[in-house]
Amino acid sequence: MRVVGIRRAGGPVEVAALSGDGAAVTVLARLEEFWADAAGFLAADPAGDPVPAADVEFVPPVLPGARVVCIGLNYLKHVAEGSYAGEGVPPYPTLFARWTASLTVDGAEIPVPADEDGLDWEGEVVAYVGSTLVDATPEEALAAVVGYSTFNDVTSRRAQKLTSQWILGKNGDRSGPLGPLVPAAEVGDLRDGLRVTTRVNGETVQDGRTDEMVYTVGDTLSLVSRTLTLRPGDLLATGTPSGVGYARTPPWLMQPGDVVEVEVERLGVLTNRIVGTSAREVARRGR
Amino acid sequence: MRVVGIRRAGGPVEVAALSGDGAAVTVLARLEEFWADAAGFLAADPAGDPVPAADVEFVPPVLPGARVVCIGLNYLKHVAEGSYAGEGVPPYPTLFARWTASLTVDGAEIPVPADEDGLDWEGEVVAYVGSTLVDATPEEALAAVVGYSTFNDVTSRRAQKLTSQWILGKNGDRSGPLGPLVPAAEVGDLRDGLRVTTRVNGETVQDGRTDEMVYTVGDTLSLVSRTLTLRPGDLLATGTPSGVGYARTPPWLMQPGDVVEVEVERLGVLTNRIVGTSAREVARRGR
Repeated sequence: MRVVGIRRAGGPVEVAALSGDGAAVTVLARLEEFWADAAGFLAADPAGDPVPAADVEFVPPVLPGARVVCIGLNYLKHVAEGSYAGEGVPPYPTLFARWTASLTVDGAEIPVPADEDGLDWEGEVVAYVGSTLVDATPEEALAAVVGYSTFNDVTSRRAQKLTSQWILGKNGDRSGPLGPLVPAAEVGDLRDGLRVTTRVNGETVQDGRTDEMVYTVGDTLSLVSRTLTLRPGDLLATGTPSGVGYARTPPWLMQPGDVVEVEVERLGVLTNRIVGTSAREVARRGR
Repeated sequence: MRVVGIRRAGGPVEVAALSGDGAAVTVLARLEEFWADAAGFLAADPAGDPVPAADVEFVPPVLPGARVVCIGLNYLKHVAEGSYAGEGVPPYPTLFARWTASLTVDGAEIPVPADEDGLDWEGEVVAYVGSTLVDATPEEALAAVVGYSTFNDVTSRRAQKLTSQWILGKNGDRSGPLGPLVPAAEVGDLRDGLRVTTRVNGETVQDGRTDEMVYTVGDTLSLVSRTLTLRPGDLLATGTPSGVGYARTPPWLMQPGDVVEVEVERLGVLTNRIVGTSAREVARRGR
Protein backbone atom coordinates (compact mmCIF):
# COMPACT_ATOMS: atom_id res chain seq x y z
CA MET A 1 0.00 0.00 0.00
CA ARG A 2 1.17 3.53 -0.79
CA VAL A 3 -0.42 6.20 1.38
CA VAL A 4 -0.73 9.86 0.46
CA GLY A 5 -2.37 13.04 1.70
CA ILE A 6 -5.08 14.63 -0.43
CA ARG A 7 -7.43 17.56 -0.47
CA ARG A 8 -10.70 17.49 -2.33
CA ALA A 9 -12.07 20.84 -3.52
CA GLY A 10 -10.26 22.82 -0.85
CA GLY A 11 -11.63 20.60 1.93
CA PRO A 12 -9.68 19.20 4.88
CA VAL A 13 -6.61 17.03 4.40
CA GLU A 14 -7.46 13.33 4.13
CA VAL A 15 -5.21 10.30 4.04
CA ALA A 16 -5.74 7.93 1.13
CA ALA A 17 -4.32 4.78 -0.46
CA LEU A 18 -2.92 5.29 -3.95
CA SER A 19 -3.87 2.69 -6.58
CA GLY A 20 -1.16 0.59 -8.19
CA ASP A 21 -1.15 2.72 -11.34
CA GLY A 22 -1.45 5.98 -9.39
CA ALA A 23 -4.63 6.88 -11.25
CA ALA A 24 -6.99 6.72 -8.27
CA VAL A 25 -7.07 7.08 -4.49
CA THR A 26 -9.22 5.45 -1.82
CA VAL A 27 -9.78 7.62 1.23
CA LEU A 28 -8.82 6.03 4.56
CA ALA A 29 -9.60 8.81 7.04
CA ARG A 30 -9.30 12.48 7.85
CA LEU A 31 -5.71 13.40 8.70
CA GLU A 32 -6.21 13.64 12.49
CA GLU A 33 -8.23 10.40 12.57
CA PHE A 34 -5.53 8.59 10.62
CA TRP A 35 -2.76 9.57 13.04
CA ALA A 36 -4.91 8.64 16.04
CA ASP A 37 -4.70 5.02 14.84
CA ALA A 38 -2.19 4.88 12.01
CA ALA A 39 -1.22 1.26 12.68
CA GLY A 40 -4.87 0.23 12.48
CA PHE A 41 -5.59 2.06 9.22
CA LEU A 42 -2.39 0.71 7.64
CA ALA A 43 -3.25 -2.87 8.57
CA ALA A 44 -6.77 -2.77 7.11
CA ASP A 45 -7.74 -3.05 3.46
CA PRO A 46 -8.88 0.32 2.10
CA ALA A 47 -12.64 0.44 1.79
CA GLY A 48 -14.70 2.95 -0.14
CA ASP A 49 -15.01 4.19 -3.69
CA PRO A 50 -11.91 5.16 -5.68
CA VAL A 51 -11.56 8.84 -6.52
CA PRO A 52 -9.67 9.81 -9.70
CA ALA A 53 -6.25 11.16 -8.81
CA ALA A 54 -6.85 13.96 -11.30
CA ASP A 55 -9.65 15.26 -9.07
CA VAL A 56 -7.56 15.73 -5.93
CA GLU A 57 -4.65 17.87 -4.79
CA PHE A 58 -1.80 15.84 -3.29
CA VAL A 59 -0.30 17.10 -0.02
CA PRO A 60 1.96 15.47 2.58
CA PRO A 61 0.03 13.13 4.94
CA VAL A 62 1.58 15.06 7.81
CA LEU A 63 -0.01 16.87 10.76
CA PRO A 64 0.89 20.60 10.69
CA GLY A 65 2.19 20.35 14.26
CA ALA A 66 4.38 17.29 13.62
CA ARG A 67 8.09 17.47 14.32
CA VAL A 68 10.36 16.68 11.38
CA VAL A 69 13.50 15.55 13.18
CA CYS A 70 16.41 15.19 10.76
CA ILE A 71 19.76 13.45 11.18
CA GLY A 72 22.80 15.04 9.58
CA LEU A 73 26.09 13.23 9.09
CA ASN A 74 24.64 9.71 9.41
CA TYR A 75 26.53 7.92 6.61
CA LEU A 76 30.29 7.57 7.10
CA LYS A 77 31.21 8.51 3.54
CA HIS A 78 28.96 11.59 3.74
CA VAL A 79 30.67 12.66 6.98
CA ALA A 80 34.01 12.30 5.20
CA GLU A 81 33.06 14.42 2.18
CA GLY A 82 31.59 17.51 3.87
CA SER A 83 32.66 20.51 5.89
CA TYR A 84 32.61 18.48 9.16
CA ALA A 85 35.10 15.90 7.81
CA GLY A 86 37.89 17.05 10.13
CA GLU A 87 35.77 16.34 13.20
CA GLY A 88 35.18 12.63 12.55
CA VAL A 89 31.96 10.78 13.29
CA PRO A 90 29.87 12.69 15.84
CA PRO A 91 29.33 10.85 19.14
CA TYR A 92 25.55 11.27 18.92
CA PRO A 93 23.19 11.74 15.99
CA THR A 94 23.45 15.33 14.77
CA LEU A 95 19.81 16.43 14.87
CA PHE A 96 18.38 19.39 13.05
CA ALA A 97 14.85 20.57 12.45
CA ARG A 98 12.50 21.03 9.59
CA TRP A 99 9.16 22.62 9.99
CA THR A 100 6.28 20.89 8.24
CA ALA A 101 5.76 24.08 6.22
CA SER A 102 8.80 23.07 4.13
CA LEU A 103 7.32 19.71 3.10
CA THR A 104 5.84 18.97 -0.29
CA VAL A 105 5.05 16.00 -2.53
CA ASP A 106 6.19 13.99 -5.53
CA GLY A 107 5.99 16.15 -8.63
CA ALA A 108 6.18 19.51 -6.88
CA GLU A 109 8.42 22.25 -8.26
CA ILE A 110 11.13 23.53 -5.92
CA PRO A 111 12.24 27.16 -6.24
CA VAL A 112 15.83 28.32 -5.84
CA PRO A 113 15.97 31.17 -3.28
CA ALA A 114 17.37 34.44 -4.61
CA ASP A 115 20.66 34.32 -2.68
CA GLU A 116 21.55 30.74 -3.63
CA ASP A 117 23.74 29.56 -6.51
CA GLY A 118 21.42 26.56 -6.87
CA LEU A 119 20.03 23.79 -4.67
CA ASP A 120 21.74 20.66 -3.39
CA TRP A 121 20.18 17.19 -3.26
CA GLU A 122 20.09 14.84 -0.28
CA GLY A 123 18.19 11.63 -1.04
CA GLU A 124 17.13 9.70 2.04
CA VAL A 125 14.46 7.77 3.94
CA VAL A 126 11.92 9.19 6.38
CA ALA A 127 10.35 7.15 9.18
CA TYR A 128 6.92 7.97 10.63
CA VAL A 129 6.26 7.60 14.35
CA GLY A 130 2.90 6.00 15.10
CA SER A 131 2.60 6.23 18.87
CA THR A 132 3.64 8.33 21.86
CA LEU A 133 7.24 7.79 23.00
CA VAL A 134 8.61 8.99 26.36
CA ASP A 135 12.02 7.67 27.46
CA ALA A 136 11.58 4.76 25.03
CA THR A 137 14.15 2.03 24.51
CA PRO A 138 15.52 1.64 20.96
CA GLU A 139 13.36 -1.47 20.57
CA GLU A 140 10.19 0.32 21.72
CA ALA A 141 11.00 3.25 19.44
CA LEU A 142 11.56 1.08 16.37
CA ALA A 143 8.34 -0.82 17.09
CA ALA A 144 6.47 2.50 17.07
CA VAL A 145 7.46 3.23 13.45
CA VAL A 146 4.44 2.67 11.21
CA GLY A 147 5.85 3.57 7.81
CA TYR A 148 8.60 4.98 5.65
CA SER A 149 8.86 7.34 2.67
CA THR A 150 11.42 8.49 0.19
CA PHE A 151 12.57 12.02 1.02
CA ASN A 152 14.74 14.65 -0.60
CA ASP A 153 16.27 16.99 1.99
CA VAL A 154 16.86 19.70 -0.63
CA THR A 155 19.27 22.21 0.82
CA SER A 156 20.08 25.89 0.35
CA ARG A 157 23.79 25.57 1.13
CA ARG A 158 24.56 29.26 1.44
CA ALA A 159 21.78 29.80 3.99
CA GLN A 160 22.75 26.56 5.77
CA LYS A 161 26.33 27.72 6.24
CA LEU A 162 25.71 31.33 7.28
CA THR A 163 26.26 30.41 10.94
CA SER A 164 26.84 27.32 13.09
CA GLN A 165 23.17 26.33 12.93
CA TRP A 166 21.73 24.85 9.74
CA ILE A 167 17.99 25.33 9.90
CA LEU A 168 17.51 28.30 7.57
CA GLY A 169 19.03 26.41 4.65
CA LYS A 170 16.99 23.33 5.51
CA ASN A 171 13.58 25.00 5.35
CA GLY A 172 13.31 26.67 1.96
CA ASP A 173 9.92 26.77 0.30
CA ARG A 174 8.83 23.30 -0.93
CA SER A 175 12.35 22.02 -0.23
CA GLY A 176 11.27 18.81 1.47
CA PRO A 177 9.43 16.50 -0.97
CA LEU A 178 8.10 13.29 0.56
CA GLY A 179 7.10 10.23 -1.41
CA PRO A 180 4.07 8.11 -0.44
CA LEU A 181 4.15 6.42 2.98
CA VAL A 182 4.73 2.66 2.71
CA PRO A 183 3.64 0.63 5.78
CA ALA A 184 6.53 -0.59 7.91
CA ALA A 185 5.22 -4.13 7.59
CA GLU A 186 5.90 -4.00 3.83
CA VAL A 187 9.31 -2.34 4.19
CA GLY A 188 10.93 -4.44 6.88
CA ASP A 189 13.98 -3.05 8.63
CA LEU A 190 16.28 -0.36 7.24
CA ARG A 191 19.15 -2.41 8.65
CA ASP A 192 18.41 -4.83 5.78
CA GLY A 193 20.24 -2.32 3.61
CA LEU A 194 17.76 -0.70 1.23
CA ARG A 195 19.47 0.90 -1.73
CA VAL A 196 19.13 4.71 -1.86
CA THR A 197 19.98 6.40 -5.16
CA THR A 198 19.65 9.99 -6.28
CA ARG A 199 19.68 11.04 -9.94
CA VAL A 200 19.93 14.51 -11.43
CA ASN A 201 18.75 14.71 -15.03
CA GLY A 202 19.14 10.93 -15.15
CA GLU A 203 22.75 10.84 -13.88
CA THR A 204 23.30 8.92 -10.65
CA VAL A 205 24.82 11.22 -8.01
CA GLN A 206 24.21 9.24 -4.80
CA ASP A 207 24.18 5.47 -4.36
CA GLY A 208 24.16 4.12 -0.81
CA ARG A 209 22.44 1.56 1.37
CA THR A 210 20.52 2.16 4.57
CA ASP A 211 22.65 -0.34 6.51
CA GLU A 212 25.51 2.18 6.22
CA MET A 213 23.75 4.44 8.74
CA VAL A 214 25.74 5.18 11.87
CA TYR A 215 22.66 5.81 14.02
CA THR A 216 19.62 3.60 13.50
CA VAL A 217 16.01 4.73 13.58
CA GLY A 218 15.43 2.99 16.92
CA ASP A 219 18.54 4.45 18.55
CA THR A 220 17.78 7.96 17.35
CA LEU A 221 14.10 8.02 18.28
CA SER A 222 15.02 6.58 21.67
CA LEU A 223 17.51 9.40 22.25
CA VAL A 224 15.02 12.05 21.12
CA SER A 225 12.32 10.65 23.39
CA ARG A 226 14.51 11.23 26.42
CA THR A 227 14.16 15.01 25.92
CA LEU A 228 10.87 15.48 24.09
CA THR A 229 7.76 13.35 23.88
CA LEU A 230 7.37 12.00 20.36
CA ARG A 231 3.79 11.98 19.11
CA PRO A 232 1.95 9.99 16.44
CA GLY A 233 2.71 11.63 13.12
CA ASP A 234 6.20 12.90 14.00
CA LEU A 235 8.85 12.16 11.37
CA LEU A 236 12.50 11.18 11.41
CA ALA A 237 14.60 11.90 8.31
CA THR A 238 17.46 9.45 8.55
CA GLY A 239 20.28 11.26 6.76
CA THR A 240 21.80 11.11 3.30
CA PRO A 241 24.59 8.98 1.79
CA SER A 242 27.67 10.49 0.20
CA GLY A 243 27.59 12.24 -3.15
CA VAL A 244 26.02 15.61 -2.37
CA GLY A 245 26.73 18.44 -4.77
CA TYR A 246 28.46 21.08 -2.66
CA ALA A 247 31.26 18.70 -1.64
CA ARG A 248 32.25 17.97 -5.26
CA THR A 249 35.12 19.50 -7.17
CA PRO A 250 33.87 21.64 -8.74
CA PRO A 251 30.65 22.00 -6.72
CA TRP A 252 27.45 20.96 -8.52
CA LEU A 253 24.18 22.57 -7.53
CA MET A 254 20.83 22.08 -9.23
CA GLN A 255 19.55 24.86 -11.48
CA PRO A 256 16.06 25.77 -12.70
CA GLY A 257 14.94 23.11 -15.17
CA ASP A 258 16.89 20.29 -13.53
CA VAL A 259 14.96 17.17 -12.52
CA VAL A 260 15.95 15.29 -9.37
CA GLU A 261 14.85 11.77 -8.50
CA VAL A 262 15.31 9.87 -5.25
CA GLU A 263 14.78 6.11 -5.50
CA VAL A 264 14.67 3.88 -2.46
CA GLU A 265 14.24 0.13 -2.71
CA ARG A 266 10.74 -0.96 -1.57
CA LEU A 267 9.66 2.73 -1.35
CA GLY A 268 9.66 3.91 -4.97
CA VAL A 269 10.82 6.96 -6.90
CA LEU A 270 10.32 10.61 -5.89
CA THR A 271 10.65 13.13 -8.72
CA ASN A 272 10.84 16.93 -8.51
CA ARG A 273 11.82 19.76 -10.83
CA ILE A 274 13.83 22.80 -9.80
CA VAL A 275 12.39 26.18 -10.80
CA GLY A 276 13.49 29.79 -10.62
CA THR A 277 13.17 32.09 -7.65
CA SER A 278 10.28 33.93 -9.27
CA ALA A 279 8.11 30.91 -8.37
CA ARG A 280 8.35 32.13 -4.76
CA GLU A 281 6.37 35.20 -5.77
CA VAL A 282 3.34 32.94 -6.13
CA ALA A 283 3.47 32.57 -2.38
CA ARG A 284 3.50 36.32 -1.91
CA ARG A 285 0.32 36.55 -3.96
CA GLY A 286 -1.34 34.21 -1.49
CA ARG A 287 -1.42 30.81 -3.14
CA MET B 1 -4.85 44.44 25.10
CA ARG B 2 -3.40 41.07 26.10
CA VAL B 3 -4.26 38.26 23.74
CA VAL B 4 -4.25 34.57 24.62
CA GLY B 5 -5.25 31.22 23.17
CA ILE B 6 -8.04 29.29 24.85
CA ARG B 7 -9.98 26.08 24.54
CA ARG B 8 -13.51 25.71 25.86
CA ALA B 9 -14.59 22.19 26.84
CA GLY B 10 -12.12 20.50 24.51
CA GLY B 11 -13.32 22.55 21.53
CA PRO B 12 -11.12 24.21 18.92
CA VAL B 13 -8.47 26.76 19.87
CA GLU B 14 -9.80 30.30 19.95
CA VAL B 15 -8.01 33.61 20.37
CA ALA B 16 -9.29 35.86 23.15
CA ALA B 17 -8.55 39.14 24.91
CA LEU B 18 -7.69 38.79 28.59
CA SER B 19 -9.36 41.21 30.99
CA GLY B 20 -7.22 43.63 33.00
CA ASP B 21 -7.45 41.48 36.14
CA GLY B 22 -7.03 38.23 34.22
CA ALA B 23 -10.32 36.89 35.53
CA ALA B 24 -12.15 36.79 32.20
CA VAL B 25 -11.59 36.48 28.47
CA THR B 26 -13.47 37.84 25.47
CA VAL B 27 -13.26 35.66 22.38
CA LEU B 28 -11.99 37.41 19.25
CA ALA B 29 -11.99 34.57 16.69
CA ARG B 30 -11.12 30.98 15.98
CA LEU B 31 -7.36 30.51 15.73
CA GLU B 32 -7.21 30.24 11.91
CA GLU B 33 -9.58 33.21 11.47
CA PHE B 34 -7.49 35.31 13.82
CA TRP B 35 -4.26 34.73 11.88
CA ALA B 36 -6.00 35.40 8.57
CA ASP B 37 -6.44 39.02 9.74
CA ALA B 38 -4.46 39.44 12.93
CA ALA B 39 -3.86 43.15 12.40
CA GLY B 40 -7.58 43.70 11.99
CA PHE B 41 -8.57 41.79 15.12
CA LEU B 42 -5.89 43.50 17.18
CA ALA B 43 -7.01 46.96 16.07
CA ALA B 44 -10.69 46.40 16.96
CA ASP B 45 -12.27 46.53 20.40
CA PRO B 46 -13.15 43.03 21.61
CA ALA B 47 -16.89 42.42 21.32
CA GLY B 48 -18.90 39.65 22.90
CA ASP B 49 -19.61 38.36 26.37
CA PRO B 50 -16.78 37.75 28.84
CA VAL B 51 -16.10 34.14 29.77
CA PRO B 52 -14.64 33.37 33.22
CA ALA B 53 -10.98 32.47 32.91
CA ALA B 54 -11.59 29.59 35.28
CA ASP B 55 -13.83 27.97 32.65
CA VAL B 56 -11.21 27.80 29.88
CA GLU B 57 -7.91 26.07 29.25
CA PHE B 58 -5.13 28.46 28.21
CA VAL B 59 -2.99 27.43 25.23
CA PRO B 60 -0.56 29.37 23.02
CA PRO B 61 -2.38 31.46 20.36
CA VAL B 62 -0.15 29.79 17.79
CA LEU B 63 -1.00 27.81 14.65
CA PRO B 64 0.32 24.22 14.88
CA GLY B 65 2.14 24.67 11.57
CA ALA B 66 3.79 27.98 12.52
CA ARG B 67 7.56 28.27 12.43
CA VAL B 68 9.20 29.32 15.70
CA VAL B 69 12.43 30.85 14.41
CA CYS B 70 14.84 31.55 17.26
CA ILE B 71 17.96 33.72 17.36
CA GLY B 72 20.88 32.50 19.44
CA LEU B 73 23.78 34.70 20.45
CA ASN B 74 21.99 38.01 19.88
CA TYR B 75 23.15 39.99 22.92
CA LEU B 76 26.87 40.82 23.03
CA LYS B 77 27.32 39.96 26.69
CA HIS B 78 25.54 36.63 26.18
CA VAL B 79 27.86 35.81 23.27
CA ALA B 80 30.80 36.57 25.55
CA GLU B 81 29.64 34.32 28.41
CA GLY B 82 28.87 31.10 26.53
CA SER B 83 30.61 28.26 24.73
CA TYR B 84 30.83 30.29 21.48
CA ALA B 85 32.73 33.17 23.16
CA GLY B 86 35.98 32.39 21.33
CA GLU B 87 34.31 32.86 17.96
CA GLY B 88 33.15 36.45 18.48
CA VAL B 89 29.90 37.90 17.21
CA PRO B 90 28.50 35.77 14.39
CA PRO B 91 28.28 37.57 11.03
CA TYR B 92 24.60 36.68 10.64
CA PRO B 93 21.87 35.89 13.15
CA THR B 94 22.39 32.34 14.43
CA LEU B 95 18.99 30.79 13.76
CA PHE B 96 17.67 27.65 15.36
CA ALA B 97 14.26 26.03 15.39
CA ARG B 98 11.56 25.25 17.85
CA TRP B 99 8.55 23.25 16.93
CA THR B 100 5.23 24.59 18.17
CA ALA B 101 4.80 21.33 20.13
CA SER B 102 7.33 22.70 22.66
CA LEU B 103 5.30 25.84 23.41
CA THR B 104 3.19 26.36 26.51
CA VAL B 105 1.69 29.19 28.56
CA ASP B 106 2.06 31.29 31.68
CA GLY B 107 1.63 29.11 34.74
CA ALA B 108 2.54 25.80 33.07
CA GLU B 109 4.84 23.35 34.83
CA ILE B 110 8.03 22.45 32.96
CA PRO B 111 9.52 18.98 33.51
CA VAL B 112 13.26 18.31 33.69
CA PRO B 113 14.18 15.51 31.22
CA ALA B 114 15.73 12.43 32.79
CA ASP B 115 19.24 13.00 31.42
CA GLU B 116 19.51 16.65 32.46
CA ASP B 117 21.04 18.08 35.63
CA GLY B 118 18.34 20.74 35.60
CA LEU B 119 16.98 23.33 33.16
CA ASP B 120 18.47 26.66 32.13
CA TRP B 121 16.53 29.90 31.72
CA GLU B 122 16.61 32.26 28.74
CA GLY B 123 14.24 35.18 29.14
CA GLU B 124 13.45 36.98 25.93
CA VAL B 125 10.91 38.60 23.61
CA VAL B 126 8.99 36.89 20.80
CA ALA B 127 7.64 38.74 17.76
CA TYR B 128 4.61 37.50 15.79
CA VAL B 129 4.53 37.84 12.01
CA GLY B 130 1.15 39.00 10.73
CA SER B 131 1.52 38.78 6.96
CA THR B 132 3.26 36.86 4.20
CA LEU B 133 6.88 37.87 3.63
CA VAL B 134 8.92 36.89 0.55
CA ASP B 135 12.27 38.63 0.01
CA ALA B 136 11.09 41.43 2.30
CA THR B 137 13.18 44.47 3.19
CA PRO B 138 13.89 44.98 6.92
CA GLU B 139 11.33 47.79 6.92
CA GLU B 140 8.64 45.62 5.31
CA ALA B 141 9.43 42.80 7.71
CA LEU B 142 9.22 45.00 10.81
CA ALA B 143 5.95 46.48 9.56
CA ALA B 144 4.52 42.94 9.32
CA VAL B 145 5.01 42.32 13.06
CA VAL B 146 1.62 42.46 14.77
CA GLY B 147 2.57 41.71 18.36
CA TYR B 148 5.09 40.64 20.95
CA SER B 149 5.15 38.31 23.96
CA THR B 150 7.41 37.45 26.82
CA PHE B 151 9.11 34.12 26.24
CA ASN B 152 11.31 31.76 28.20
CA ASP B 153 13.52 29.67 25.93
CA VAL B 154 14.02 27.03 28.63
CA THR B 155 16.93 24.86 27.61
CA SER B 156 18.10 21.29 28.24
CA ARG B 157 21.81 22.09 28.06
CA ARG B 158 23.08 18.55 27.91
CA ALA B 159 20.85 17.68 24.96
CA GLN B 160 21.67 21.02 23.32
CA LYS B 161 25.40 20.34 23.45
CA LEU B 162 25.41 16.68 22.36
CA THR B 163 26.42 17.71 18.83
CA SER B 164 26.96 20.85 16.77
CA GLN B 165 23.21 21.38 16.33
CA TRP B 166 21.10 22.65 19.20
CA ILE B 167 17.53 21.68 18.46
CA LEU B 168 17.05 18.66 20.71
CA GLY B 169 17.83 20.68 23.83
CA LYS B 170 15.58 23.50 22.61
CA ASN B 171 12.43 21.42 22.24
CA GLY B 172 11.83 19.70 25.57
CA ASP B 173 8.25 19.15 26.65
CA ARG B 174 6.55 22.43 27.66
CA SER B 175 9.95 24.15 27.52
CA GLY B 176 8.78 27.23 25.64
CA PRO B 177 6.29 29.25 27.72
CA LEU B 178 4.84 32.28 25.97
CA GLY B 179 3.14 35.19 27.72
CA PRO B 180 0.08 36.91 26.26
CA LEU B 181 0.49 38.62 22.88
CA VAL B 182 0.53 42.43 23.21
CA PRO B 183 -0.29 44.32 19.99
CA ALA B 184 2.73 45.92 18.32
CA ALA B 185 0.95 49.27 18.40
CA GLU B 186 1.03 49.19 22.22
CA VAL B 187 4.62 47.97 22.43
CA GLY B 188 6.38 50.29 20.02
CA ASP B 189 9.82 49.33 18.80
CA LEU B 190 12.17 46.92 20.58
CA ARG B 191 14.94 49.33 19.61
CA ASP B 192 13.47 51.63 22.30
CA GLY B 193 15.22 49.32 24.75
CA LEU B 194 12.62 47.40 26.73
CA ARG B 195 14.03 46.00 29.94
CA VAL B 196 14.16 42.16 30.05
CA THR B 197 14.66 40.56 33.45
CA THR B 198 14.60 36.95 34.56
CA ARG B 199 14.18 35.88 38.18
CA VAL B 200 14.62 32.45 39.73
CA ASN B 201 12.92 32.08 43.09
CA GLY B 202 12.82 35.87 43.23
CA GLU B 203 16.53 36.43 42.55
CA THR B 204 17.35 38.44 39.43
CA VAL B 205 19.55 36.37 37.09
CA GLN B 206 19.23 38.28 33.82
CA ASP B 207 18.80 42.03 33.34
CA GLY B 208 19.16 43.37 29.81
CA ARG B 209 17.52 45.73 27.35
CA THR B 210 16.21 44.92 23.90
CA ASP B 211 18.28 47.70 22.32
CA GLU B 212 21.36 45.57 23.08
CA MET B 213 20.33 43.12 20.34
CA VAL B 214 22.89 42.67 17.57
CA TYR B 215 20.28 41.68 14.95
CA THR B 216 16.96 43.49 14.96
CA VAL B 217 13.58 41.91 14.32
CA GLY B 218 13.32 43.58 10.92
CA ASP B 219 16.82 42.56 9.81
CA THR B 220 16.32 38.97 10.91
CA LEU B 221 12.88 38.44 9.40
CA SER B 222 14.14 40.03 6.19
CA LEU B 223 17.03 37.55 6.05
CA VAL B 224 14.75 34.59 6.78
CA SER B 225 12.29 35.68 4.10
CA ARG B 226 14.99 35.39 1.46
CA THR B 227 15.04 31.61 1.93
CA LEU B 228 11.60 30.70 3.23
CA THR B 229 8.26 32.42 2.91
CA LEU B 230 7.14 33.68 6.30
CA ARG B 231 3.43 33.24 6.97
CA PRO B 232 0.95 34.93 9.29
CA GLY B 233 1.37 33.36 12.71
CA ASP B 234 5.08 32.57 12.41
CA LEU B 235 7.16 33.60 15.43
CA LEU B 236 10.62 35.04 15.95
CA ALA B 237 12.26 34.55 19.36
CA THR B 238 14.79 37.36 19.55
CA GLY B 239 17.49 35.89 21.81
CA THR B 240 18.40 36.21 25.45
CA PRO B 241 20.60 38.67 27.36
CA SER B 242 23.57 37.53 29.45
CA GLY B 243 23.16 35.74 32.76
CA VAL B 244 22.18 32.21 31.77
CA GLY B 245 22.86 29.48 34.29
CA TYR B 246 25.21 27.10 32.51
CA ALA B 247 27.82 29.82 31.93
CA ARG B 248 28.10 30.65 35.64
CA THR B 249 30.82 29.47 38.01
CA PRO B 250 29.60 27.17 39.38
CA PRO B 251 26.82 26.42 36.88
CA TRP B 252 23.27 27.04 38.13
CA LEU B 253 20.43 25.04 36.63
CA MET B 254 16.82 25.08 37.77
CA GLN B 255 15.55 22.14 39.82
CA PRO B 256 12.05 20.80 40.47
CA GLY B 257 10.24 23.26 42.72
CA ASP B 258 12.04 26.33 41.38
CA VAL B 259 9.92 29.18 40.04
CA VAL B 260 11.16 31.20 37.06
CA GLU B 261 9.78 34.55 35.98
CA VAL B 262 10.52 36.53 32.82
CA GLU B 263 9.49 40.17 32.94
CA VAL B 264 9.59 42.42 29.91
CA GLU B 265 8.67 46.08 30.06
CA ARG B 266 5.27 46.72 28.35
CA LEU B 267 4.72 42.92 28.01
CA GLY B 268 4.28 41.72 31.58
CA VAL B 269 5.49 38.84 33.71
CA LEU B 270 5.62 35.16 32.68
CA THR B 271 5.81 32.67 35.56
CA ASN B 272 6.51 28.93 35.43
CA ARG B 273 7.44 26.23 37.90
CA ILE B 274 9.97 23.48 37.23
CA VAL B 275 8.81 19.94 38.01
CA GLY B 276 10.39 16.49 38.04
CA THR B 277 10.84 14.21 35.09
CA SER B 278 7.97 11.99 36.25
CA ALA B 279 5.62 14.72 34.97
CA ARG B 280 6.60 13.58 31.48
CA GLU B 281 4.86 10.27 32.16
CA VAL B 282 1.56 12.13 32.00
CA ALA B 283 2.27 12.56 28.31
CA ARG B 284 2.84 8.85 27.88
CA ARG B 285 -0.59 8.21 29.38
CA GLY B 286 -2.08 10.36 26.65
CA ARG B 287 -2.85 13.72 28.23
